Amino acid sequence: MKNYIETNKERFFEELFSLLRIPSVSSLEQHKPDMHRCAERLVELLMEAGADEADVYPTAGHPVVFGQKMVDPSLPTVLVYGHYDVQPVDPVELWHSDPFEPEIRDGAIYARGANDDKGQLFMHIKAFEFMSRQGTLKHNVKFILEGEEEIGSPSLAAWAKDHKDMLAADIILVSDTTMISESVPSINCGMRGLSYVEVKVTGPNKDLHSGHYGGAVANPINVLCDMISSLIDKDGHITVKGFYDDVVELTAEDRAKLSRAPFDIDEYKEFLDIKEVKGEVGYSTLERTGIRPCLDVNGIWGGYIGEGAKTVLPSVAHAKISMRLVPNQDSATITRLFKEHFEAIAPDYVKVEVTPHHGGDGFLIPISSPAYQAAEKAMTEVYGIEPVPSRGGGSIPILADLQRILGIDPLLMGFGLERDTIHSPNESYLLKQLFAGMEAIALFYKYY
Amino acid sequence: MKNYIETNKERFFEELFSLLRIPSVSSLEQHKPDMHRCAERLVELLMEAGADEADVYPTAGHPVVFGQKMVDPSLPTVLVYGHYDVQPVDPVELWHSDPFEPEIRDGAIYARGANDDKGQLFMHIKAFEFMSRQGTLKHNVKFILEGEEEIGSPSLAAWAKDHKDMLAADIILVSDTTMISESVPSINCGMRGLSYVEVKVTGPNKDLHSGHYGGAVANPINVLCDMISSLIDKDGHITVKGFYDDVVELTAEDRAKLSRAPFDIDEYKEFLDIKEVKGEVGYSTLERTGIRPCLDVNGIWGGYIGEGAKTVLPSVAHAKISMRLVPNQDSATITRLFKEHFEAIAPDYVKVEVTPHHGGDGFLIPISSPAYQAAEKAMTEVYGIEPVPSRGGGSIPILADLQRILGIDPLLMGFGLERDTIHSPNESYLLKQLFAGMEAIALFYKYY
Repeated sequence: MKNYIETNKERFFEELFSLLRIPSVSSLEQHKPDMHRCAERLVELLMEAGADEADVYPTAGHPVVFGQKMVDPSLPTVLVYGHYDVQPVDPVELWHSDPFEPEIRDGAIYARGANDDKGQLFMHIKAFEFMSRQGTLKHNVKFILEGEEEIGSPSLAAWAKDHKDMLAADIILVSDTTMISESVPSINCGMRGLSYVEVKVTGPNKDLHSGHYGGAVANPINVLCDMISSLIDKDGHITVKGFYDDVVELTAEDRAKLSRAPFDIDEYKEFLDIKEVKGEVGYSTLERTGIRPCLDVNGIWGGYIGEGAKTVLPSVAHAKISMRLVPNQDSATITRLFKEHFEAIAPDYVKVEVTPHHGGDGFLIPISSPAYQAAEKAMTEVYGIEPVPSRGGGSIPILADLQRILGIDPLLMGFGLERDTIHSPNESYLLKQLFAGMEAIALFYKYY
Repeated sequence: MKNYIETNKERFFEELFSLLRIPSVSSLEQHKPDMHRCAERLVELLMEAGADEADVYPTAGHPVVFGQKMVDPSLPTVLVYGHYDVQPVDPVELWHSDPFEPEIRDGAIYARGANDDKGQLFMHIKAFEFMSRQGTLKHNVKFILEGEEEIGSPSLAAWAKDHKDMLAADIILVSDTTMISESVPSINCGMRGLSYVEVKVTGPNKDLHSGHYGGAVANPINVLCDMISSLIDKDGHITVKGFYDDVVELTAEDRAKLSRAPFDIDEYKEFLDIKEVKGEVGYSTLERTGIRPCLDVNGIWGGYIGEGAKTVLPSVAHAKISMRLVPNQDSATITRLFKEHFEAIAPDYVKVEVTPHHGGDGFLIPISSPAYQAAEKAMTEVYGIEPVPSRGGGSIPILADLQRILGIDPLLMGFGLERDTIHSPNESYLLKQLFAGMEAIALFYKYY
């Protein structure tokens, strides 16, 4: 694969850039046509790479791309999952180059989606193309590329149910996560689930003059702050009633295994420019993101947020709050518990509304499975050291759904790095990782 | 005065409407020429009403109108303060008629400034005209009408310092506040001061993926909520160190006097559509806005506040926070104490910045003063019942400045009502109050 990459590098860039130039932001209505353009472009790339068939499939939301090459029904089948939708680019003024005009700087591609997930799914298409053209493919390969991952995959589960036979496979192979660091390859053997809600706190029925009413009428922003503050106690525990009921405590042995991942707390703090980390008492930083649930306010707004000063006691305050869940915590249950709790702690002087956004369950993959073992061999060969089993803090809720619907385990070979700042301005993807990923994926097929 | 009003009513409307038609919005650059037109029109009205002299005086900002009639230097002098600038009209689509084309409907004038403060200052010009034309004036009268009250009077204090001798008087008479209700006349004998700050809490140096970092890195929104929540304790006391040091506790007698103001808590709650009021333990609702300081978040923002969901752990969170102060609390001192406190309680894992906006001190007028007594008699005569001494929760910081600079106490005879919705769409002013105000002001001069 190394030589093949060297020979075809420029064409690879052109092809990947053609995907990155399409602003396929799934959360914004205005980009609906771009979603279709991006899906069509993927069909072309799959066909050119050697697929027998590839097509755009409509769903209730943005379309799904499905393509496959069936070599021999008796051979094992790999189902590659990826997503072609991207996050919004705000705050766009912090980008050093146009988010939708990819640029190579300092050995990395800068663009929205450079890593997440256009860059990473592209590695799979190219590894497939290589094996296909070399005639070395000894697996059936299927691609399912969706356009709604960044908005919680609202349509894919239903679509997958309707196309269960078409999607039959032995493993779901995914590159949509990160490695521990450039020098510490890792394979993700578990992801957190997600419950995401929006809350609205209403005080008086109109905005009031804070001079006339301040001190006598509950201010919904102050109340919202009180309520949010009460959701996490001083030890970092989430206070939502019943929240930890289904959390499985890891054994000391499992925790020891996970702690093999090298991790430099000083580098971490320096990278984020923070003096101290903060989290649940009794757990390390890696455990806090890997094996423990958490709660974060993702957005908050209320009152006057323009320039200067306005003495308003506002009528409403809002927040978006998400909880990351660990395997065995049920997303729907947690969303219900949160809603009940938030309503229960609301003081008499305000009204609250809790609206669920999307959610999803976490999952775990056994280290002893053949797919994990093949990935381990492949990465050892590419990186020269054995990869560490890691637990990802993020969520790809649809993978837990696909696992349940199709009865197939996912395997997460992610090649992203923290430095790529996905979801943030100046998202990038190291060329080194792009090419190492292609090699490792091709080797995975060799050992699986 | 009653007959004079009856005879001249139509002319009064024409004159007041000529002021209301000028969109003198002080905060908007585009209305600069309107500020001058409005000031010139006031000069005309003052001269027509009987002033010896009246002129437009430039300041660093919008001009000041000063006019006077000196009857005899040995007589007491009344300095009338008012402002001809108005608030913006947004959201303009909620107005039932053009905000700058006054209309009389259901016994009230509807227009921006109908009450605040064009309508109320107009009463003073007409009472002056009446006494002037009847030859009953036995005071010297001075008018100082500014164009920057709605933006915090940035220029008037300096201008007043430069014109101290010209402004010499025995009392500053102001109508820019409300009465308790239509049937409960009141005289405002104190206003709260203000300290207004903006705070910024910075966590990591960039927006992060809340899945990868959530649980391990302090989220500045959560931290800001914790910090804001800690600013007020469960009894409604502000926790800023030293905050109450200069607050003067009222005597039981004074509190009893203030509590004479009729107040229906059920009507109040119904008007605001709230189940319960909330404030400092041990004080009534009127006391909470009248004689006690308070702290309100006027605005808060951070993270993703658009449609849908984004799993971001943001880098920064902001809030605008204001404190209403009682007389004897120094605005600059409180701003400093807040800044010190907020910085002191900031945990290690964030950085905070506190930026002061504007502020001003509160003030008190003794009920026993001759001016208060004269106003009490005047209003008793007009309304048939003795007015209640009230304490306004809002702030007119310039009055505390003028009091300090000129050494003259202000007296606030306000004739506005809650129903007038100043600063909001469909501002109005009841004709009944307009005329009662003129009468009461003329009587004030009789008894002062």
